[in-house]
Amino acid sequence: MQRMLAAELDSEYGRRVRVAGWLHHQRQLAQVAFVLVRDRSGITQVVLEEPDARAAVARLIPETVIEVEGTVVNSDQAPAGVELVDPTISVVSEPVLPPPFELRRPQLNAQLPTLLDHAAVSLRHPARRAVAAIAAASVSGFRAALDTSGFTEVFTPKVVAAATESGANVFPIDWFGRRAFLAQSPQFYKQIMVGVFARVYEVGPVFRAEPHDTARHLAQYLSLDAEMGFITDHRDVMAVLRSVLAAMAETINERAQPALDLLKLTTPEVPVDIPVVAFRDAQEMIERATRRPTLGEPDLSPADERWLGDWSRQQHGSEFVYVTGYPMVKRPFYTHPDPNDPTASNSFDLLFRGLELVTGGQRLHRFDDYAQALRGHDLTAFNGYLDAFRHGMPPHGGFAIGLERWIARLTGAANIREVTLFPRDLNRLAP
Amino acid sequence: MQRMLAAELDSEYGRRVRVAGWLHHQRQLAQVAFVLVRDRSGITQVVLEEPDARAAVARLIPETVIEVEGTVVNSDQAPAGVELVDPTISVVSEPVLPPPFELRRPQLNAQLPTLLDHAAVSLRHPARRAVAAIAAASVSGFRAALDTSGFTEVFTPKVVAAATESGANVFPIDWFGRRAFLAQSPQFYKQIMVGVFARVYEVGPVFRAEPHDTARHLAQYLSLDAEMGFITDHRDVMAVLRSVLAAMAETINERAQPALDLLKLTTPEVPVDIPVVAFRDAQEMIERATRRPTLGEPDLSPADERWLGDWSRQQHGSEFVYVTGYPMVKRPFYTHPDPNDPTASNSFDLLFRGLELVTGGQRLHRFDDYAQALRGHDLTAFNGYLDAFRHGMPPHGGFAIGLERWIARLTGAANIREVTLFPRDLNRLAP
Repeated sequence: MQRMLAAELDSEYGRRVRVAGWLHHQRQLAQVAFVLVRDRSGITQVVLEEPDARAAVARLIPETVIEVEGTVVNSDQAPAGVELVDPTISVVSEPVLPPPFELRRPQLNAQLPTLLDHAAVSLRHPARRAVAAIAAASVSGFRAALDTSGFTEVFTPKVVAAATESGANVFPIDWFGRRAFLAQSPQFYKQIMVGVFARVYEVGPVFRAEPHDTARHLAQYLSLDAEMGFITDHRDVMAVLRSVLAAMAETINERAQPALDLLKLTTPEVPVDIPVVAFRDAQEMIERATRRPTLGEPDLSPADERWLGDWSRQQHGSEFVYVTGYPMVKRPFYTHPDPNDPTASNSFDLLFRGLELVTGGQRLHRFDDYAQALRGHDLTAFNGYLDAFRHGMPPHGGFAIGLERWIARLTGAANIREVTLFPRDLNRLAP
Repeated sequence: MQRMLAAELDSEYGRRVRVAGWLHHQRQLAQVAFVLVRDRSGITQVVLEEPDARAAVARLIPETVIEVEGTVVNSDQAPAGVELVDPTISVVSEPVLPPPFELRRPQLNAQLPTLLDHAAVSLRHPARRAVAAIAAASVSGFRAALDTSGFTEVFTPKVVAAATESGANVFPIDWFGRRAFLAQSPQFYKQIMVGVFARVYEVGPVFRAEPHDTARHLAQYLSLDAEMGFITDHRDVMAVLRSVLAAMAETINERAQPALDLLKLTTPEVPVDIPVVAFRDAQEMIERATRRPTLGEPDLSPADERWLGDWSRQQHGSEFVYVTGYPMVKRPFYTHPDPNDPTASNSFDLLFRGLELVTGGQRLHRFDDYAQALRGHDLTAFNGYLDAFRHGMPPHGGFAIGLERWIARLTGAANIREVTLFPRDLNRLAP
């Protein structure tokens, strides 16, 4: 008999079927036992009446892998609207001991470190699994949007000879006796590849030796990177980013609707025109409204970002807001200045619900501008990168979305580790 | 005027259009100049007759980024069947110096180390770019096949506290003062995630500190990993792998046909029933045919694999052949033995054109089997992994395809570095 999934049973009334999965929970009543079997599609309720069968199941601990043959019947009480009766249950694989927390509860009742230590079990909880399903759908939407816009996926090195973003926050590696580093971003490589494909993207891990133990930083995270040539300025990049975010939300709706339902979430609406505010205008508004001294600061504080998030929602009905024109001094060396104001940059951040989600902008594309920007540095370390600019590069720009940050904002997680399968940070290297 | 791509011009006869790209090549004749502009879709031929315009273009070096406005006309001589006449050419971005090799030649005329040192330029060559396009399409096909089969994509750590495959061949990292390692595979994580989603895949970099400088090994490569639960044995995994390979070939045909044409390649046919030969039967055949002593060896040699590739092509008309039942002694500790012969394993290799392309098999799923297999090891290093098996795991298995090896076999590259954007090996860390 072919195995069926929980989600397929509602078209099988009256038929004998076989399901297989994990013993999620059982309730033993006086005359009957209800057994919940969890598989990758959902949960099947199995009704046992025969005393020996009930006694046999009563001995099984949660997470036992079982197979059930039974007859599908309609049931208003069962979670999926159907249940299996007259079952035969067989044990496929037995656990050694019960889980350290109850997976059947709507919320896992344990502290975050315990959940992370036991990720192999805690991730089986339907709510945790739903978060991971939304993450997978988000990435699928990211790629789909760029595939249809003529971007090509690339795969670049994660071990590099020199730091890309700044000298700090890199992890040193012993590379056959030489010193190397984990890549902080694919920035150099995606720019080089603009010279090849004009439009490229990469989905891959990046590494930041972030020494602060915060609720929103990870030492490894998944960076959704895109870069495109033949732009006028950063606004062309912002337009592509908008369509990418819309596709991510749409793909979550298409592919992870059960996960959204379980978590009682809806995806945010991505406005056709995301509000845009210039960095200095933002500072003026914030200082006027809050009387906090803000003007003249080279960057926005977390409180500033929250204020702009509220402003955007109230004034524009948008959970997203672009801030453009950050001061050059706080942006990486490859950032293109504003042609009308060399102290400001053709860069942007996208805030989502009051937190920076995406950073992007136009990059320098002339070799001489790089030579100038890197004055005082050892250019040999950058040689392979600078080759792209020696040999003709169009105006270009791009952005990077942090996947875990997106998921954390979407789900309202207090700590980014709650939405990361196996987080890595200052203190955590396992599992 | 909206910019158009080279590949879009054949429906624009008589219209004035704008294209932009790299000056691929120019031929100056007595009365006329032909300029080839390369963009992400192909090459546009531009015809200049006006003497001043010809003189201006003659000064430009290859890889200058230019924009051209011109009128589309039919042309039997032009590569794309159309060309632009009455052009206005403007320079967008000027190179500092000409490329170290001529990108216009059908073959790049330089040694591999030179091409790799100048990857930012050599990858712009249409043949090199075509290889990268085929790689992107392959990965897209891998994901599409698994998405439609109920697999979920996962993203797992690339830095781990303990080696996964074996103690050798790992790269040590300084992780905030602690010793850690680059992940050799996502093996432990994909098995853990079988407990969550039952079917998972991951596309990500893996790292092997391979001390041998060979034409088929890289220190970082892209691993296309899948793992699935509720299998009977390794043959269920082999059936999924077949459909994945078929989808990879199909997606290359759909999305990278111009790249195939340029390289004069066709994708291999993936038979519905890939020939299967048991390890010991393979050894017997090889020893009988070649009179080389083969029986009793615990693994197949490269010569053995080539022999089997020839045999499969000649006897079965298949470029793929499965070898099953490798001796347990040569397989990793998590390999499931053959229930009928505990010295043999429920594992397989898939050979493609006489070279191992994929390794896979059924894994152990009972906690006690892991405790036994890891006897003598410090189990605390494996604790988070073993948690999955303590808490009930179904019979499961999976496989890993090395992307670069697939592309090397497909394109007939003599050295895997020829088909890798930015290879990493014993000697190479840049660009």
